[in-house]
Amino acid sequence: MSTASARGTGPAPPHRDLVLRHATAEDVPDIVAMLADDALGAQRETPGELAPYEHAFARIDGDPNQHLMIAEHAADTPGGPPRPVGTLHLTIIPGLSRRGATRSLIEAVRVHTDARGTGLGTQLIEWAIAESRRQGCALVQLTSDATRVDAHRFYERLGFEASHLGFKMTL
Amino acid sequence: MSTASARGTGPAPPHRDLVLRHATAEDVPDIVAMLADDALGAQRETPGELAPYEHAFARIDGDPNQHLMIAEHAADTPGGPPRPVGTLHLTIIPGLSRRGATRSLIEAVRVHTDARGTGLGTQLIEWAIAESRRQGCALVQLTSDATRVDAHRFYERLGFEASHLGFKMTL
Repeated sequence: MSTASARGTGPAPPHRDLVLRHATAEDVPDIVAMLADDALGAQRETPGELAPYEHAFARIDGDPNQHLMIAEHAADTPGGPPRPVGTLHLTIIPGLSRRGATRSLIEAVRVHTDARGTGLGTQLIEWAIAESRRQGCALVQLTSDATRVDAHRFYERLGFEASHLGFKMTL
Repeated sequence: MSTASARGTGPAPPHRDLVLRHATAEDVPDIVAMLADDALGAQRETPGELAPYEHAFARIDGDPNQHLMIAEHAADTPGGPPRPVGTLHLTIIPGLSRRGATRSLIEAVRVHTDARGTGLGTQLIEWAIAESRRQGCALVQLTSDATRVDAHRFYERLGFEASHLGFKMTL
């Protein structure tokens, strides 16, 4: 996976036909489609109504601590368009606790149906860890819905510890 | 609790002798002392070595999405200094998922030993919820160490749901 980013670079590319880059406004429909193509996302997202996502994208794009990423696979045919295969949102958060530690938060990780089982999820998270380290973070964190048991095993394999409970309140 | 903040205002004050305001650089030693006065914080914080905290404070203070708050109680004697009694860090995070929902993250909640059992923790969290709502957040989230069983009950009483596992990795 290679990175093409004005804000940062990640680890060396394991596959030369994959690009991980910061998303642009033109990527919003593809990212929303991936967010919606998921057991929980299907109930929450409205890929047919993009205005709220476009508004949110502008806010993300204007904040240097937000890294909304899209992974693309090279075109299947020469000259064709690249295929979006994954997405991830990394937020850098300064803080006082843990000796003034900056932490990062991973949200909205999705791998396209066509790319599941290829190791792309691992590559996305490994990029997020490497980028967090590059930005001086002392801690990377994420929450995973209690029903996503496979995801829990995935994060533990990657070295995360399920040390906390994640509390949420919708407003 | 009243608020005195350039960035936002919270709910009406339940106690006129409490002020909740954005922290300044001068508050860093008091906040670090509260972070350290805790079963987990005692192992993580270095209140005798403030430089990393001061550096982190500058970064927090320069980011309009960070709200590092300190709660103060009126002086015990007329003309005396106010007493720091609590702290909380609220981060506002734009995002694409959940129809472009902005979410907030609560970190580093502490109530001074002298003020425990007074309802101040509830006031801090209620302020964070109200401020999140005021800023258009659709979701408030936090993680709590799995060992903090009393804290879990506290957050559930306030309306949070322990719907997620919280994964962390130190770098």
